[in-house]
Amino acid sequence: VSAAGAEPAAAGVSELRPAQRRRRAEVLRVAAELFAENGYETTSTTDLAERLGIKGGSVYYYIDSKEELLFELVQDIYGLLLESLQEVLDSDADPLAKLRQLIELHVSGMARHRHRGALILNETRSLSAEHRAVTAVQAAAYEEGLASVIAAGQELGQIDPDIDPKLVTKALLGAGNWVNRWYREGGAWSPQDVSRDFARIFLDGLARSKT
Amino acid sequence: VSAAGAEPAAAGVSELRPAQRRRRAEVLRVAAELFAENGYETTSTTDLAERLGIKGGSVYYYIDSKEELLFELVQDIYGLLLESLQEVLDSDADPLAKLRQLIELHVSGMARHRHRGALILNETRSLSAEHRAVTAVQAAAYEEGLASVIAAGQELGQIDPDIDPKLVTKALLGAGNWVNRWYREGGAWSPQDVSRDFARIFLDGLARSKT
Repeated sequence: VSAAGAEPAAAGVSELRPAQRRRRAEVLRVAAELFAENGYETTSTTDLAERLGIKGGSVYYYIDSKEELLFELVQDIYGLLLESLQEVLDSDADPLAKLRQLIELHVSGMARHRHRGALILNETRSLSAEHRAVTAVQAAAYEEGLASVIAAGQELGQIDPDIDPKLVTKALLGAGNWVNRWYREGGAWSPQDVSRDFARIFLDGLARSKT
Repeated sequence: VSAAGAEPAAAGVSELRPAQRRRRAEVLRVAAELFAENGYETTSTTDLAERLGIKGGSVYYYIDSKEELLFELVQDIYGLLLESLQEVLDSDADPLAKLRQLIELHVSGMARHRHRGALILNETRSLSAEHRAVTAVQAAAYEEGLASVIAAGQELGQIDPDIDPKLVTKALLGAGNWVNRWYREGGAWSPQDVSRDFARIFLDGLARSKT
């Protein structure tokens, strides 16, 4: 895997020289930005090259296709999500504390990383069927991880046993994902404000006494 | 406003004869279906005519433009949402009971009327700036109505006073709107199951004891 010699178009990442790797990371970053701002479908590789300040064709030196770019971005994001989920699952905290952490992570992540959040929420339908199948498995793994913490809390008597953990997960993800749509930096709330209050709403409920 | 005589293209609704009004309602219903299934941008008036079984150009007998069609659909939906909100606000129930009703209405509505929900959640960005401004006012009115019930519950000591009513509203709408994305008829849960459990999660919280 020597870096010397002529580089084939769309070389594997491992074959790229450091400067090229940095450039490739920059391509990914800018692509995420454009896809999130204008939508994947309406963004062309020409738009991408323009914002990067390079010639249209040279984009293909770093990527195989626009779809491949989207897939790699989505993979990266799911990788990070599943990694932070696993870290919480592996910790010594009790299920309720784990649930609070997971709510806070998801909500603050959606507020902080708006472009990346928008990609996995809105653009995965543009992936090839094969790639969509891969991300569907990752999305399901994330939901199952959350549901498993809720089920563990129910078994321990910490969490209301009368609600399906899968339905709780849907409610949590909905509230968290919606943050990606409405949250604006520099507004009334910091990402911490939102994540702390959302955790409080879900764990303690709104009513002062049980209804 | 006689219905006799030659009809101008895109006659006002009040000028249409009963059979034409029925046809127009059918055009709206089918448009909602197509926009929700394939997206507004990728649906053409030719697609619409095809599904209706009429000639391409005759669609313009019932509508001025595709955008006008989307606007009318979105207006209808916001009209219904604001009407049911107002009904609850005007009732004699206490704030907590009103909040429960509003959560249930929103959640079950998003499960039951998937096409209509998808339109106001995903397609309003395709409206003209002028029309978008109108729907933004309606969306804000809906959010403010919900927040006002929460604030009233806080004043009465029924609802946790330490969370911003606007932030609670964002959490509620997020969980409710997300239902439109994942809910499938004939699955594990009825619309009632989802709306009842979501209301329970939000009002009573997940933790068995206050955290």
